[in-house]
Amino acid sequence: MIDYDPFFSNAAATMRESAIRQMGAVLAGAADIVSFAPGYPAEDTFPWQATAEIARELLTGTDGSVLQYGPTRGHRPLREIITGLMAERGVRTAVEDVLMTTGSQQGLDLVARVLLNPGDVVLLELPSYTGAITAFRNVGAELVGVRQDEDGLDLVELDRTAAALAAEGRRVKFLYLVPNFQNPTGLLVSLAKRRALLEWARRRQVLIVEDDPYRDLYFPDVAAEADTRPVAADDDERRVVYLSSFSKTLAPGFRVAWVAAAPAIIAKLEVAKQAEDLCTGPLDQRIVYEACRRGVLARQLPLLRAHYQHKRDVMVQALTRSLAGVITWPEPRGGFFLWGRLRAPLRSDVLQPIAQAHGVIYVPGHAFFVNGQGHEYLRLSFSAPAPDRIELGVSRLAAAIREASDRAGATSPAASRV
Amino acid sequence: MIDYDPFFSNAAATMRESAIRQMGAVLAGAADIVSFAPGYPAEDTFPWQATAEIARELLTGTDGSVLQYGPTRGHRPLREIITGLMAERGVRTAVEDVLMTTGSQQGLDLVARVLLNPGDVVLLELPSYTGAITAFRNVGAELVGVRQDEDGLDLVELDRTAAALAAEGRRVKFLYLVPNFQNPTGLLVSLAKRRALLEWARRRQVLIVEDDPYRDLYFPDVAAEADTRPVAADDDERRVVYLSSFSKTLAPGFRVAWVAAAPAIIAKLEVAKQAEDLCTGPLDQRIVYEACRRGVLARQLPLLRAHYQHKRDVMVQALTRSLAGVITWPEPRGGFFLWGRLRAPLRSDVLQPIAQAHGVIYVPGHAFFVNGQGHEYLRLSFSAPAPDRIELGVSRLAAAIREASDRAGATSPAASRV
Repeated sequence: MIDYDPFFSNAAATMRESAIRQMGAVLAGAADIVSFAPGYPAEDTFPWQATAEIARELLTGTDGSVLQYGPTRGHRPLREIITGLMAERGVRTAVEDVLMTTGSQQGLDLVARVLLNPGDVVLLELPSYTGAITAFRNVGAELVGVRQDEDGLDLVELDRTAAALAAEGRRVKFLYLVPNFQNPTGLLVSLAKRRALLEWARRRQVLIVEDDPYRDLYFPDVAAEADTRPVAADDDERRVVYLSSFSKTLAPGFRVAWVAAAPAIIAKLEVAKQAEDLCTGPLDQRIVYEACRRGVLARQLPLLRAHYQHKRDVMVQALTRSLAGVITWPEPRGGFFLWGRLRAPLRSDVLQPIAQAHGVIYVPGHAFFVNGQGHEYLRLSFSAPAPDRIELGVSRLAAAIREASDRAGATSPAASRV
Repeated sequence: MIDYDPFFSNAAATMRESAIRQMGAVLAGAADIVSFAPGYPAEDTFPWQATAEIARELLTGTDGSVLQYGPTRGHRPLREIITGLMAERGVRTAVEDVLMTTGSQQGLDLVARVLLNPGDVVLLELPSYTGAITAFRNVGAELVGVRQDEDGLDLVELDRTAAALAAEGRRVKFLYLVPNFQNPTGLLVSLAKRRALLEWARRRQVLIVEDDPYRDLYFPDVAAEADTRPVAADDDERRVVYLSSFSKTLAPGFRVAWVAAAPAIIAKLEVAKQAEDLCTGPLDQRIVYEACRRGVLARQLPLLRAHYQHKRDVMVQALTRSLAGVITWPEPRGGFFLWGRLRAPLRSDVLQPIAQAHGVIYVPGHAFFVNGQGHEYLRLSFSAPAPDRIELGVSRLAAAIREASDRAGATSPAASRV
């Protein structure tokens, strides 16, 4: 057999599998696991009937371009509709500013390829989204995390970090942000902090990459649409590269998302996309376009907010009942995630195999930290499981934590003798 | 406004737009252009009714995973069916050897990212497929072309080139081949030459990347299935990375293709794909799976062979009528392309704007040459236009060539006075 190692690129040698996707594989292989791991939207919320109707009308063969190669930039009527969605978010966008991508993951990957040289620095929140971390690392960028509190990034530490990097002659290309219901923390950054971050980026002359997939999924009991105003909305010099998606509001199976940015950046991203997959699925784009045009998306959103707010309630109540004081968390004001912090000395990576044996999985916190920290955290996705499964999963988690604590209690005297 | 140039990566600075896609943009903007440019399959051959039926059954909501995120490696039942398709092609493949990709373009891009460091050498045919050229160049590889005749690559020149590169200490990672009805030449490499190329790769210890999208589209009047046996079929040491696609046999709008290779390579490609787009469209994959399972694909193939063979005939007859001696070509034995050679001193790049003014477009030959040559060639795709449009396009091309010749005749005495 051939030894392939000498054939692999340096990039391939350092690529790492996503911790979330690993958990997905566990899920696929197991019978009765409650999964709080991947941030999957709830399948029973997908607009099945509307999608079926749209597909039937699209697939008559009247318009052959539905199944043909499409333009790399995307289906133009969909890009036009997106300028309307952007306007609703407070962001002025022309159709030339929009590039369709094969999921936001492709947007992140294209941004990485077009903006980052090996050794360039990306600043990002501690913790941050693993998919972005992987895309940026794959092009050899160095990721530097900055502490955030419940209000968002610590501006003092952010500026100190940037100053230190500048003093070392390092090139910071952009700051990566997920201001709305961040994956993994669920945090909602305050509007004042958003404006301050934009001002900071202007002063330091770095770009901002704003990743905004959860914006529509605020929970009306504790947040309002006005709280989700993107950083891009106040960006009058086109410093922000803005990404969003239909994966969380229609369905991820369409793989339809977009990037909105200055035309000069969009043009580069388009050329990169051309070599990466020629075009995003034309049938998928048409279905999404029709779902927007016919009001399917608009009708979805209040239902989704209620759906996920209810699941948040179920998880919060179950955690409060079974694990008060053992796990603490900032209450999610939108999105899919509850970011739990384990009482010391519990560690989420040590707990993981025990939890799995009890039939519940989650993503250990350290997967979201670029600095090796985060072992006391765990990301619990409440989006996909039904309410009774959420309750079952939390009770299993509680049992797993009791077992882990018992084990620690049994071994710590021995450990103290060392 | 911000000057973005300092923010772009070195890779972005060297990325180039595809000549084929540029022509696609011309097409999109024009009213009555006959397009021999992009190699689009004929939309009236797409299995519309079967696709509509399958979509209706898939979109009932009974199986929520149809619109959910899917595994990065692809829909397992589809990967299983592909092992059967591979067996029909003479290639033994296990399900672990198969990775689904978002079109073959993504497969080429992943291969580039996983196998190539900047400065690594890829050997390839002169001319070769532009999408591959772009994907390999985007990671900084150096592309070295080797002359081919109607039987395929010139083995003497291939080995001399490899020896010269080795003497310079250059690293050749792989040889890129399109043995069946190559894009752009339409050539069918002989079976003896295929075996010789595999033997050569073994001796020189390079991998082979075999790109095989047109294999099913042989023309029964001049070729048989046995003539299309992949290089991978005789590869008992897993030296070949094999790519194929449903874009030319079902429809490109599904963006569903695959790579088959040794599990060690597939594992790396999968990790790279994870960061690139998480997964290929699950709805698209399900539709393709059902189309295979229900025999839709198998029923398509003889119809497609007849369809494209007929269009080849129409183009060849029209060219013979209008342009005998002015354009010469190897007769296409399958696929989508006729590779024309213009009588000297005509140049396809000079002819291009004149042809466009006459209402016909094609891709100039130099786009397929990595060494700056090829100006006497032009790629004429006969796949998409209806027969009467092919005839119209050829007559426009003939008129354009007459005009170009007249202009050259008018200017050359002047030129000779210089």
